[in-house]
Amino acid sequence: MCTEECLKQAGRAGAFSRRAALAGAAAIAASAVMAEPAQAGPKGGYGRGVRDLTHPLTTTFPAFAPGEEPSRRTYVTIEENGYYMQEWRILEHYGTHVDAPGHFIPGGRTSTELAAAELVTPAAVIDIAARAARDPDTTVTVADIKGYERRYGRIPRDAAVLMYSGWAAKAGDPDAYRGTDAGGTLHFPGFSAEATEWLLRHRRIRSLGVDTLSIDPGVSSTFDTHLILTGADRYGVENLAGLDRLPRSGATIIVGLIPYQEGSGGQARVFATW
Amino acid sequence: MCTEECLKQAGRAGAFSRRAALAGAAAIAASAVMAEPAQAGPKGGYGRGVRDLTHPLTTTFPAFAPGEEPSRRTYVTIEENGYYMQEWRILEHYGTHVDAPGHFIPGGRTSTELAAAELVTPAAVIDIAARAARDPDTTVTVADIKGYERRYGRIPRDAAVLMYSGWAAKAGDPDAYRGTDAGGTLHFPGFSAEATEWLLRHRRIRSLGVDTLSIDPGVSSTFDTHLILTGADRYGVENLAGLDRLPRSGATIIVGLIPYQEGSGGQARVFATW
Repeated sequence: MCTEECLKQAGRAGAFSRRAALAGAAAIAASAVMAEPAQAGPKGGYGRGVRDLTHPLTTTFPAFAPGEEPSRRTYVTIEENGYYMQEWRILEHYGTHVDAPGHFIPGGRTSTELAAAELVTPAAVIDIAARAARDPDTTVTVADIKGYERRYGRIPRDAAVLMYSGWAAKAGDPDAYRGTDAGGTLHFPGFSAEATEWLLRHRRIRSLGVDTLSIDPGVSSTFDTHLILTGADRYGVENLAGLDRLPRSGATIIVGLIPYQEGSGGQARVFATW
Repeated sequence: MCTEECLKQAGRAGAFSRRAALAGAAAIAASAVMAEPAQAGPKGGYGRGVRDLTHPLTTTFPAFAPGEEPSRRTYVTIEENGYYMQEWRILEHYGTHVDAPGHFIPGGRTSTELAAAELVTPAAVIDIAARAARDPDTTVTVADIKGYERRYGRIPRDAAVLMYSGWAAKAGDPDAYRGTDAGGTLHFPGFSAEATEWLLRHRRIRSLGVDTLSIDPGVSSTFDTHLILTGADRYGVENLAGLDRLPRSGATIIVGLIPYQEGSGGQARVFATW
């Protein structure tokens, strides 16, 4: 809709603001009869079993490197302009986001080249939270995956394999979420290179997802898991939330990646349904 | 994952770049055996019937006001840093995006307050493309909706009602998409205020969506449809793509709104399934 610049061009910003204030009040009054509690959500079966796996996109969510958080500013306001809008300055790998193959691989596919059908897939949730609470450097291993399959059945082809480590609960404390030690090394769980190779080769997965800053464990300086996964033309999803409330098998994950031009990945709204 | 700043802090950017290049090549070779054509999409029934309703987010998509397009810059590169990433500067109402109630209504709900269950709803597609081709100022009327219901059945509660006007095909030509005349007035279709009020009151819809820049027609200077819809605590979706390929009834729309902090709305990846 109309922005500050177009209103300026049209020379009617003042008139619009006054009109907006009046009409807005009228609309609120007119609509009172039909308002429902917002938190009630849709009725009729739609939206049942929909879960949000996305952290709110704030300027205080932990960045991989302190200082790389986004900034935002108010661009127009209802009081001055008739409507409200912000402008953001943001890196593609902040908050809940996707790593496209082109993030690490020269000539690898970028955000607009990941098709809708690749972004809606079955989900398998590997729970290593108890072990991660004792050892933040732990990783998802081949043994974890085999243990998962004994309990929940074979991981289907084209699945998103998601690590639940309990880390999302730390997102309000960037130091705890990054786990930075005195020497500057990070400590949080991730996928082992061996498990990643096994899942690609034997289960032909579509993606890996984690509730931490990286699909590699924090201590990694070589990013083997990233290189193996993106080298296989598959993608990663980082900083997921809400994995504790997801069934371990049987859910479908919907990765709403913003299709940034030549994007190395980018912000995504991630839902699950079952 | 690790960003330029954290690599600098760790003092290992050079070593990482070299290692990445080597490991990346090895990973590509190792994965060749399991690569599938990217365009084939997932097998096994998942992703069947998933359609993308989102325009790629480029810097040349038509902004409501020329000059308000986003900018992007390369932040790090695989050659220099071991991986590739862009930074974006962007307004919340560019490209395929949501208008939250707080966009127009003081104290109205903002992006993080729209629940997942509200963003996944049944979709009803009202086709006015033939009329819009003759008259770009046309609107969706109450008669259009009643005609739709005679053919496709009653619009369910909490639906997304989507206008298909054929405008998405013009997105490569900003002047045509905006329809700006010599006097600076815009010309593209939208929802009439009357139809919006009728849908809210009699069908208790959840949202309106359009394949144009605004849920109001381009000629509007008072934004009545925005004010009525957001005044009723409902949201809009603008610049949708692919509505020509959607069933007129029976689809579910998934609005992957980025949950911007205090957002007036924002970029969204929008899918439909059926």
